[in-house]
Amino acid sequence: MLHKRNPQLNGHGELIHLLSIEGLPREIITHILDTASNFVSVSDREVKKVPMLRGKSVFNLFFENSTRTRTTFEIAATRLSADVINLDIARSSTAKGESLLDTIANLSAMAADIFVVRHSESGAPYLIAQHVAPHVHVINAGDGRHSHPTQGLLDMYTIRHYKKDFANLTVAIVGDVLHSRVARSDIHALTTLGCAEVRVVGPQTLVPGDMREMGVRVFHSLEEGIRGCDVIIMLRLQNERMSGALLPSSQEFFKRYGLTPERLTLAKPDAIVMHPGPINRGVEIDSAVVDGKQSVILPQVTFGIAVRMAVMGIVAANTREIS
Amino acid sequence: MLHKRNPQLNGHGELIHLLSIEGLPREIITHILDTASNFVSVSDREVKKVPMLRGKSVFNLFFENSTRTRTTFEIAATRLSADVINLDIARSSTAKGESLLDTIANLSAMAADIFVVRHSESGAPYLIAQHVAPHVHVINAGDGRHSHPTQGLLDMYTIRHYKKDFANLTVAIVGDVLHSRVARSDIHALTTLGCAEVRVVGPQTLVPGDMREMGVRVFHSLEEGIRGCDVIIMLRLQNERMSGALLPSSQEFFKRYGLTPERLTLAKPDAIVMHPGPINRGVEIDSAVVDGKQSVILPQVTFGIAVRMAVMGIVAANTREIS
Amino acid sequence: MLHKRNPQLNGHGELIHLLSIEGLPREIITHILDTASNFVSVSDREVKKVPMLRGKSVFNLFFENSTRTRTTFEIAATRLSADVINLDIARSSTAKGESLLDTIANLSAMAADIFVVRHSESGAPYLIAQHVAPHVHVINAGDGRHSHPTQGLLDMYTIRHYKKDFANLTVAIVGDVLHSRVARSDIHALTTLGCAEVRVVGPQTLVPGDMREMGVRVFHSLEEGIRGCDVIIMLRLQNERMSGALLPSSQEFFKRYGLTPERLTLAKPDAIVMHPGPINRGVEIDSAVVDGKQSVILPQVTFGIAVRMAVMGIVAANTREIS
Repeated sequence: MLHKRNPQLNGHGELIHLLSIEGLPREIITHILDTASNFVSVSDREVKKVPMLRGKSVFNLFFENSTRTRTTFEIAATRLSADVINLDIARSSTAKGESLLDTIANLSAMAADIFVVRHSESGAPYLIAQHVAPHVHVINAGDGRHSHPTQGLLDMYTIRHYKKDFANLTVAIVGDVLHSRVARSDIHALTTLGCAEVRVVGPQTLVPGDMREMGVRVFHSLEEGIRGCDVIIMLRLQNERMSGALLPSSQEFFKRYGLTPERLTLAKPDAIVMHPGPINRGVEIDSAVVDGKQSVILPQVTFGIAVRMAVMGIVAANTREIS
Repeated sequence: MLHKRNPQLNGHGELIHLLSIEGLPREIITHILDTASNFVSVSDREVKKVPMLRGKSVFNLFFENSTRTRTTFEIAATRLSADVINLDIARSSTAKGESLLDTIANLSAMAADIFVVRHSESGAPYLIAQHVAPHVHVINAGDGRHSHPTQGLLDMYTIRHYKKDFANLTVAIVGDVLHSRVARSDIHALTTLGCAEVRVVGPQTLVPGDMREMGVRVFHSLEEGIRGCDVIIMLRLQNERMSGALLPSSQEFFKRYGLTPERLTLAKPDAIVMHPGPINRGVEIDSAVVDGKQSVILPQVTFGIAVRMAVMGIVAANTREIS
Repeated sequence: MLHKRNPQLNGHGELIHLLSIEGLPREIITHILDTASNFVSVSDREVKKVPMLRGKSVFNLFFENSTRTRTTFEIAATRLSADVINLDIARSSTAKGESLLDTIANLSAMAADIFVVRHSESGAPYLIAQHVAPHVHVINAGDGRHSHPTQGLLDMYTIRHYKKDFANLTVAIVGDVLHSRVARSDIHALTTLGCAEVRVVGPQTLVPGDMREMGVRVFHSLEEGIRGCDVIIMLRLQNERMSGALLPSSQEFFKRYGLTPERLTLAKPDAIVMHPGPINRGVEIDSAVVDGKQSVILPQVTFGIAVRMAVMGIVAANTREIS
């Protein structure tokens, strides 16, 4: 595959792109989380903004529409005082038959500092990182089913915020693992950070075959899967990516895998419940749980701004080297 | 209805949201107009911008597309030095089945300071104001047929600018009152500000039944309706919202209700002519009147920037209280 | 035609709008190129931004979608510290039947300083320049097949950068001249700047009839047309604007008019190859040429930012006079 030599780090082992949590050393992840904690006062509006990226250009290159993700990056960049250019690539000259790499070369030549890339094809951000001009840093904002590293990092930030240490934690990732770019990012991050036990919970049809090789325990019963957990990460049932045989009915899914207040009592009493959003209330999770005391779903969003600020600030400060 | 306890004011009677002119005390309206007069020098480019909202985040949440209104708010926010995030909600995760309130909770958690909301459903901004995080202020940029308060306020600003005092004025609102969010806002504002006489002029099919209860005089003849008036507010014939039986032909409408130079002579010689735009020339108003000496249609646009700056500056300065 | 009295200049002969290179005096073009050379350090990110247009409002009025061109103007304006408002006019109130001139009057009243206009109709920017409020400057970002002056100017900047002087140059413009707004702008600019010889090369069906009157030599053989040239400007084959009989197959076109490494040897050894983008690799130009040593296609993009900064900075500094 592409990731043999780690394209995310420069010769000094510093982060220059964020493409995937896979392959990120523990110190880098910890450095991102530590930096993010300095930005939480900005993300919650105590401090309005910081001048760290003043005059830098951040290009939001969304080959696939995602208003929510685009917005979080735009806010993060704005609070670092960067200038943000939004490019709706779907409607742009790629439609005129220009190749992805020519589009990227062209945009590099406009002297961007950071490309935030969302693409429906796995690996596209890697390809782009290999071809951008030497002054451009690439941040993956989701590629196909592969990876969504800033979501993974904000999940880690949230867990660390509430649980302090990963060493003794049991974390369950529940639901449609197959279609989730978040699940893989979370598993890599949790493993790297030394989480005691990572579980994946879902129906056979929605749990990929390689989960056990990734070092996680697989459960097909929700009750068993969340028993004794410290953290429950609920995933969105991605109906829009399924068809035919695979697709469970929402009611059926909720009956077996929906997180209800009753089932939640099986986890530790101080367990937290997370969700990457957007939520399907009554499909993968009961409204009472979303709005309940153990839910940290909205803090996740706020921490997400701080984490994206941290990632942008870090990559922009590191010099890329031309190999 | 929703407005029993006034959700636009905090415990000190200060403006914290702008949802509707209905229910706004006279002092608040006057305070907005007075503040706006300080910003006219910014809106006409003598002064470039002011730092009042530096570092604040204004989210333009347009559930219904309106480039013109969105632009005026974006300009107003920018001239107060705020950062503006435009969200094309129609294409966003509400499409993924997320509820309005979950979308709002999510965007609140991104630490916005002001939501500018445009929605096709009457009352949506009220619902949103009830559910946003405690630091968010909501401004209604038009909800269904209900209300368009900043348009009403800029109309008041324009009238006060040219006529100084409302006490002796006769104001006629002419045309498609039924489909106009502006007409209701104007009537409430004029009544609150002590306008001597408010008239509504239009065909029976386009004047709602509750007008007389609102304290206005209803006319079905344009000539009678505008006779002796100081101010004529022409409304846009909203063909796009009508169907079948209701819809008059443009020619027919112009013949009976189009404001021509001849008819305009029935009003006071120094009467001013207003229109919220976009104009249908030759449908509700003759080109010669649009471009004539009594037209203040373009100054309305300029004043509109100042009024929107005033509203944003005022709500952002007032602390919300959690009830 | 419209250009009798030069609407681009004020009474002192200073540039107040940029509508077309046709009619621009040599000193003005040279002044733009000289100013741009001061901004290259900004466009290549040595200097982050300059405060020249701080507080000014630039409106991007794109009646026709062009993400790439819009982006270059947005970047240029941002690096001059201006505030940029993007208006997607296609979806806006023109759709509600408002006339172009009413839309323009309305947007003028919002106190813009610069309108960047892209329109599918030739002459639209001229019409707009005649009707905007006295404080607004208009820059043409492409109108129909007519003109694309900033592209022409960045081509001149690129040629001057590599070749220093126009006096002894032979420049060939190759390909689909008929549908190119760039070709005409380039011919006017080259002629005005005293270029020794301008050639146009293409199939009979894609070279307009008036080329010889413009003072250029016409070739229908690529080999003859580029022989001994200093500069080769390749044009994009605009398949999307052709139909039926006119349309050559891509293969056929490449066979006769595609620029290959072998053919390039017919030009001077130090000839440069330019292209306005987006590129059709293997249609009008071979990949090996695009990526080869003589290609200056990416520097064109970088210089384009500097040239657009120069044009905006210059027009905004000059006072318009009301005639």
